[in-house]
Amino acid sequence: MGDRTTNRPSIGELIAGISDKNTVMLSRAITLIESKLPSDQLLARQLLDEIPVANEQSIRIGITGVPGVGKSTFIESFGSYLTDFNKRVAILTVDPSSSLSHGSILGDKTRMEKLAMNPMAYIRPSPAGKTLGGIASNTRETILLCEAAGYEIIIVETVGVGQSETLVKEMVDFFLLLMIPGAGDELQGIKRGVIEMADSLVINKSDGNTREASKHAQQAYQNALHLYPARTSGWSVPVLTCSAIENLGIGNVWRTISDFMELHMAKGWIALNRSNQNISWLETLIERRLVEDFFSSSSKTDQLQSIKEKVTAGEISVRHAVEQLFN
Amino acid sequence: MGDRTTNRPSIGELIAGISDKNTVMLSRAITLIESKLPSDQLLARQLLDEIPVANEQSIRIGITGVPGVGKSTFIESFGSYLTDFNKRVAILTVDPSSSLSHGSILGDKTRMEKLAMNPMAYIRPSPAGKTLGGIASNTRETILLCEAAGYEIIIVETVGVGQSETLVKEMVDFFLLLMIPGAGDELQGIKRGVIEMADSLVINKSDGNTREASKHAQQAYQNALHLYPARTSGWSVPVLTCSAIENLGIGNVWRTISDFMELHMAKGWIALNRSNQNISWLETLIERRLVEDFFSSSSKTDQLQSIKEKVTAGEISVRHAVEQLFN
Repeated sequence: MGDRTTNRPSIGELIAGISDKNTVMLSRAITLIESKLPSDQLLARQLLDEIPVANEQSIRIGITGVPGVGKSTFIESFGSYLTDFNKRVAILTVDPSSSLSHGSILGDKTRMEKLAMNPMAYIRPSPAGKTLGGIASNTRETILLCEAAGYEIIIVETVGVGQSETLVKEMVDFFLLLMIPGAGDELQGIKRGVIEMADSLVINKSDGNTREASKHAQQAYQNALHLYPARTSGWSVPVLTCSAIENLGIGNVWRTISDFMELHMAKGWIALNRSNQNISWLETLIERRLVEDFFSSSSKTDQLQSIKEKVTAGEISVRHAVEQLFN
Repeated sequence: MGDRTTNRPSIGELIAGISDKNTVMLSRAITLIESKLPSDQLLARQLLDEIPVANEQSIRIGITGVPGVGKSTFIESFGSYLTDFNKRVAILTVDPSSSLSHGSILGDKTRMEKLAMNPMAYIRPSPAGKTLGGIASNTRETILLCEAAGYEIIIVETVGVGQSETLVKEMVDFFLLLMIPGAGDELQGIKRGVIEMADSLVINKSDGNTREASKHAQQAYQNALHLYPARTSGWSVPVLTCSAIENLGIGNVWRTISDFMELHMAKGWIALNRSNQNISWLETLIERRLVEDFFSSSSKTDQLQSIKEKVTAGEISVRHAVEQLFN
């Protein structure tokens, strides 16, 4: 029975609705877990504890790339390819910039027009006004809710300009880096280390005038990747080309992901990876909570600022600073 | 006045001795800061607060490379080159493996025979039985003591097999990655990301039969590095070759470091970097202390273990787990 005064569905109704693939209920459940109200958080915990684990093996795919690389067009094309094969697809964003524009729900939906109208697809942007850590935590929980609602493919999209890639990498099975052929300095703008996290590089806009350039970039990246050691699983990171706008090479991306999943599921690596991700997420939350409690429960913030100034001025040693803070 | 019963020098005597470039006093001071005894820690804090800051601008150089790359031979050759120019050189190690062998003082000294006998050089291995974080913290403080003792060049050496490179990178001005030419898969065994931290790559063993191979490796790395964006400072990471055993190319390494320092000192980047390193070290220590206090002050460890098992078994959500731990 729901809350009569606000007409909000009860936890039982939310869970039943989600299991029934009701996207309105799914959206309300996600809004609940994003809420900062203590009463909502209690309900959210109950929801997350009680929601049944998905029967189907889902595939969690992270996609990143700098602005202008064509992420929306790629996801539109890739998502439609999947729904054509009768797969239900959820698209979540981890967007550190969306908190500045106070959310971009309309923005996200209009930039993926076809998918937004597609009954097999579900699009959910980052909650507004949250820290990156908060967005990441909500997104992890949203993944679980989407899986419970029968979405088999979860795409988590992020902009390749900060630490969000690392957070996304930590919540997916497969991490895809989308690129475009540039002039010489291909990696311009991409944070160091992102390339190394990728399970595949996909060079978009391999069409028209940029077709040749994308073939060259493919070769250059493939050579550069050969310098890195092979993965334990034997997976070697492929560099693919595609044209999202012309729907070319999209099937090849999907085959690559399927191959990856097959290889890694055969030895239980996907399950192990997810379990490790959960534990490391738990540890991150514990540490974050400790740090938050420390700096919010008292006047520690002011004290820390003055201590930092003393350290910078060379007045006290770092060791002394820590002791002063804790005694 | 020292402690009469144990014949230990007082803090005043230690500081006077260090300022006097007395290496016995320097060694005793380092042993004091490495001590875990609460009474020693009080003295260590006093020492670190009172020790005068070095007059000379020092150069802090981090050197890493996988075992077998010839780090000891390189440091022996490079260190002797510097002392020939009348520079005083301190060599510190951040060695995660030394805690297993209960310290390697003799090992470190015998593997750098010439430097160990050289009055212009000072060698200090990692303290035994410490965690990597503890070693890193001690090494940072040891750097300050060595600088106070008039060492102008501080070399911090670490084995390129774990997280120690990141810790070392965070305490030096210049980070050097030592390599050898391999067969094709050059980066085998080197942790991803280490290459990106390097301010210069130096390919050792460029002599005899491996001379040609090292030239090829140099070219391959230089090409691969061109894929990365240029540094803000305009520094582009050079790939050098040398033969430590034949003393070839060592002067070139030194000129590269000098160029780097000149470029980065001109705009105050070295000072800014050191100041940022100090603040981030302080923050790391605060977080570490919070986590340590949390898990040592109570029966939290057992509780966490059982909660992790519940999370892995899917019995409770991660969100629930955190709340259970903190309530």
